[in-house]
Amino acid sequence: MKLPFFLLALTTIAASAATRPYGLVIHGGAGVIERAALSPEREAEYRARLADALNAGYAVLESGGTSLDAVTAAINIMEDSPLFNAGKGAVFNADGICELDASIMDGRTQAAGAVAGVHHIKNPINLARDVMLKSAHVMMVGDGAEKFARSLGYEMMPNEYFQTDWRRQQLKKAQEKDGKERTAAQPGDYFTRTLRWGTVGCVALDKTGNLAAGTSTGGMTNKKFGRVGDAPIIGAGTYASNATCAVSATGWGEFFIRVGVARDIAAQMEYRGTPLRAAVAASLAKVARLGGDGGVIALDAQGNVAMEFNTPGMYRAAKLSGQPAVIAIYGDEAKP
Amino acid sequence: MKLPFFLLALTTIAASAATRPYGLVIHGGAGVIERAALSPEREAEYRARLADALNAGYAVLESGGTSLDAVTAAINIMEDSPLFNAGKGAVFNADGICELDASIMDGRTQAAGAVAGVHHIKNPINLARDVMLKSAHVMMVGDGAEKFARSLGYEMMPNEYFQTDWRRQQLKKAQEKDGKERTAAQPGDYFTRTLRWGTVGCVALDKTGNLAAGTSTGGMTNKKFGRVGDAPIIGAGTYASNATCAVSATGWGEFFIRVGVARDIAAQMEYRGTPLRAAVAASLAKVARLGGDGGVIALDAQGNVAMEFNTPGMYRAAKLSGQPAVIAIYGDEAKP
Repeated sequence: MKLPFFLLALTTIAASAATRPYGLVIHGGAGVIERAALSPEREAEYRARLADALNAGYAVLESGGTSLDAVTAAINIMEDSPLFNAGKGAVFNADGICELDASIMDGRTQAAGAVAGVHHIKNPINLARDVMLKSAHVMMVGDGAEKFARSLGYEMMPNEYFQTDWRRQQLKKAQEKDGKERTAAQPGDYFTRTLRWGTVGCVALDKTGNLAAGTSTGGMTNKKFGRVGDAPIIGAGTYASNATCAVSATGWGEFFIRVGVARDIAAQMEYRGTPLRAAVAASLAKVARLGGDGGVIALDAQGNVAMEFNTPGMYRAAKLSGQPAVIAIYGDEAKP
Repeated sequence: MKLPFFLLALTTIAASAATRPYGLVIHGGAGVIERAALSPEREAEYRARLADALNAGYAVLESGGTSLDAVTAAINIMEDSPLFNAGKGAVFNADGICELDASIMDGRTQAAGAVAGVHHIKNPINLARDVMLKSAHVMMVGDGAEKFARSLGYEMMPNEYFQTDWRRQQLKKAQEKDGKERTAAQPGDYFTRTLRWGTVGCVALDKTGNLAAGTSTGGMTNKKFGRVGDAPIIGAGTYASNATCAVSATGWGEFFIRVGVARDIAAQMEYRGTPLRAAVAASLAKVARLGGDGGVIALDAQGNVAMEFNTPGMYRAAKLSGQPAVIAIYGDEAKP
């Protein structure tokens, strides 16, 4: 039987839509995460919260929502959880307060938004998204970013909302060790490395084939002088383009900025056709050669997933259509 | 005659050092710069100041100084001149003050430094350099960055030092037109485009083959909400790697961040061997496709120069060893 052309075309589109993968990958930070240091109860909490974030994002995609909405939904859950270094539960800066950064990028339009150094925004990823969608700018910092938030009717949270006791303890320890690490050339010891834990991020691919990426963080414990890491830097911590991939990074931000990790991964795909996972590995190797460490999640338009890190562990999870969900923490678990 | 091997080797090294090119390229901003709008006196001032900056940087290189020192020397002269939108003579933000950003990168080590939103630093490029060399961080913003400067003994300038009457007039005009331009998707009219003029930058190659890049700016007139453009973003406004090239960009910063222009140019060279000028043209074409405009200067380790822009003009100059200096403003002049 020969179908009329328009029916044939419809059939092809329907088949392609039916088989087109969608899904998301999330991370809750890379670092020195080892079984010995994590109690079974605490580990179960992390896995539960990662599952919540994954399911929230996946539900958006399954019901036909956009990758941008999925990224926001998943990150909001991790921002609201005290377990992760983003939103509530963020690390303390040297002045004893939580100071938050976030960025987001739309792979379809390459529109992007970022905020850095905000103190009163419950969900910084939402403000980054509003910078992208409701201003002519890409990046806003400090009081100015919060002034913009107020103009949009955001509730201003007291900084105490973000503060938790265990992060305050981390600050205390960090300040006792302060001054030991002077330059970017010094790799830092085991303890100072752990100060950089816990950024959260999400990359998503929706049913229409659009990619998006987002990252949210409190930065590093005891950070001084208005330090900004890679999380709010488009091209370093976050990048998305439908032509290549969506990337969110976590780790020692200074090195991720110097390599331009997120943009570097996309560039390898764009300019020499490197497959996603190999591109991620090559960029992380560059970070390592400079003396840094961390992890990356990435997703391309074909549904290929990367969850790579050169630290002992990374809180991570992935759910792609038609495949079982994966939730993992340690280095010896699956990197799906 | 057969030379002993060690003498032969020495001869080769000497010849290579003698023929190895060195030099620098500078820009003073791209935009709607047309003969009809620039008086002969004003034009002569611009050319004289570009020559001063070029000569200061070249003198550093000629005497065997580093590309980093040349970049700093050239940019300092433009920061100190009221003609350019950097340091003294920076544009006003919406609050009626000058708010400065800068970044610098060392191609040899890929170390980088950046500051954003400072109000009292005479030469922001120097502070960016100190962030790179004297802290464990890459980027510092706002009051924190100035606190770091004070800890290093920087003199704090009153903001009035930076303020000039003609920039105040530009703010007034911009505020009269305010609210006409709401989203990044709108390209803006002739006037709003001119608000983005005048960032300064320099790329340099020294006698030992090391590249460096730096960029310094007051951002855009009437900017609000702590807006940060591409100038202090490593990978967007500034990038340097000895393996590829040094880049400084100027223009509509939001688009340069979204494309990751400086990193994108280096990535084309790194991953598909694109020659410098073609890589610059391809990245600027991406900016144009998204609706943005601006210019780029770049230099590779072989001494190839790019000075490209898709605006009517760009203040620019170049001096490579063994070649005549070039100083140009309009689009119909040489792009050496």
